[in-house]
Amino acid sequence: MSVSRAAIWKHIQKLREDGYVIESSPKKGYILKKAPDLLLSNEIREGLTTEIFGRGDIVYFSETDSTNTRAKELADQGAPEGTVVVSEKQTDGRGRKGRNWFSPSREGIYVSLILRPGISPDEAPKTTLLTAVAVAEALISLTLLKVSIKWPNDILTNGKKIAGILTEIRAEIDAIDYIIVGLGLNVNTPDFPDDIRENATSILIETGKHFPRVTVIREYLKQYERYYKIFGRIGFEPILTRWKELSNIIGRQITVEATGTKHTGQVQDIDRDGVLILKDNAGKYHRIFSGDVILM
Amino acid sequence: MSVSRAAIWKHIQKLREDGYVIESSPKKGYILKKAPDLLLSNEIREGLTTEIFGRGDIVYFSETDSTNTRAKELADQGAPEGTVVVSEKQTDGRGRKGRNWFSPSREGIYVSLILRPGISPDEAPKTTLLTAVAVAEALISLTLLKVSIKWPNDILTNGKKIAGILTEIRAEIDAIDYIIVGLGLNVNTPDFPDDIRENATSILIETGKHFPRVTVIREYLKQYERYYKIFGRIGFEPILTRWKELSNIIGRQITVEATGTKHTGQVQDIDRDGVLILKDNAGKYHRIFSGDVILM
Repeated sequence: MSVSRAAIWKHIQKLREDGYVIESSPKKGYILKKAPDLLLSNEIREGLTTEIFGRGDIVYFSETDSTNTRAKELADQGAPEGTVVVSEKQTDGRGRKGRNWFSPSREGIYVSLILRPGISPDEAPKTTLLTAVAVAEALISLTLLKVSIKWPNDILTNGKKIAGILTEIRAEIDAIDYIIVGLGLNVNTPDFPDDIRENATSILIETGKHFPRVTVIREYLKQYERYYKIFGRIGFEPILTRWKELSNIIGRQITVEATGTKHTGQVQDIDRDGVLILKDNAGKYHRIFSGDVILM
Repeated sequence: MSVSRAAIWKHIQKLREDGYVIESSPKKGYILKKAPDLLLSNEIREGLTTEIFGRGDIVYFSETDSTNTRAKELADQGAPEGTVVVSEKQTDGRGRKGRNWFSPSREGIYVSLILRPGISPDEAPKTTLLTAVAVAEALISLTLLKVSIKWPNDILTNGKKIAGILTEIRAEIDAIDYIIVGLGLNVNTPDFPDDIRENATSILIETGKHFPRVTVIREYLKQYERYYKIFGRIGFEPILTRWKELSNIIGRQITVEATGTKHTGQVQDIDRDGVLILKDNAGKYHRIFSGDVILM
């Protein structure tokens, strides 16, 4: 098949628009000098050694409202476990309880995974803890930053939020149909809006270095798969152990607000279901499934 | 406004096609002799005294795949709590774990309710127990049959299944977005297919009488609302008490299969979360969220 010069030139122009730096040389033809840090499926897949996450579809958006919303639609249509939905930008990035997640274009990672684990709905909180461990491990292995997990789903560095997790479930009473695990991770964000500046940070801010987002997402998928396989084959115990090492909450005095009620007391433990056990100041014990924690 | 004779005649023909028996009398005009037992919104609403269920939309289908599927779509689009979806027939009526629910046209009640309770996902099983109580109470008050609940979601008469409940959830880890409570209730079904004949029954078979389905669904909505309000205002305790009175499981020797594992032992209790507490034959206790029970 012969391709015209003009047709090649059109393709090259398209790549340049996407941020690829391509030189043309009279003798050698076109030379790729620099690839942009885009989260394109092919870029993510390159060198990815996972067997579940990212092996099937990696659905890419340059912009979407929320990767979790897109992933839910795909899962409703039967998309298999391991499907990855990624966007360069979210116009309606969501955190827990309908809160906003700041999602500027090409600065962070906004990615949702479809899970179809054979567990019952009361075990769903375990996947949030698993995700927190995977994110923390990916951050630690790439950046060497000190990372801690704030129960149930915030990843902190230097006391500030560097990543957040949003877990959504579709289930029958018996069995989970699917779980969507959304991650918002601040990678190369240089600065944040006034209302969150005090509480938010990014890898760039903490390390002074730009990290290729492709490398970060690949490491996340790798760590996710590692812990997800441990969960499936061995159980939750090893994940909980690692979670506790990474968390700063056990033994701490906290106030936690959950489904309208507020409790203040000392965290006794995270039990084997991932549920927080709080002893309030009157000595009464509470099992808390999820909620907003204020460290005292 | 004047309406032509021909236009009126067309409307009357349409009603006759739907099963209305209408006589025409030269002097008096048209006389309604008999209304068919259809679950049309207007028929259900007539005399309905509820404030939540059936006060807003009652979405009617003469045929659909599954009322739960339709209700989920509506809930995804923001349909409020109390929305009722009803169909005369289901072509793909579903029970737990993708099992089929026999749904012949105009013989049973196939109805789904949208709930948006302010509870956390681990409390969802409570709504299945609540639904079982509402169904049992409606059956008892109308038919005087002896009705029992088989944990978690079957309603039995004379040892046979007369109704089934399918609960589906959309949730974040923190909070339930919505719950769909589907009910399949055999009302005027004269007979069942071979494969379920031994285990299935209907109000007609048990009482020898045809009950208007409209009356049955109205009673169900009334009972549902009663218990749902108790749940919201007082809590789960009174519902659990009534559930235990109606259930035949406590103290019984059973085998229960849940998420791939099987346990045999004696039922100690249903705890305040609606979870079954089983002491197996080795003396070990198990908390069982949901599963298939075989009474021994």
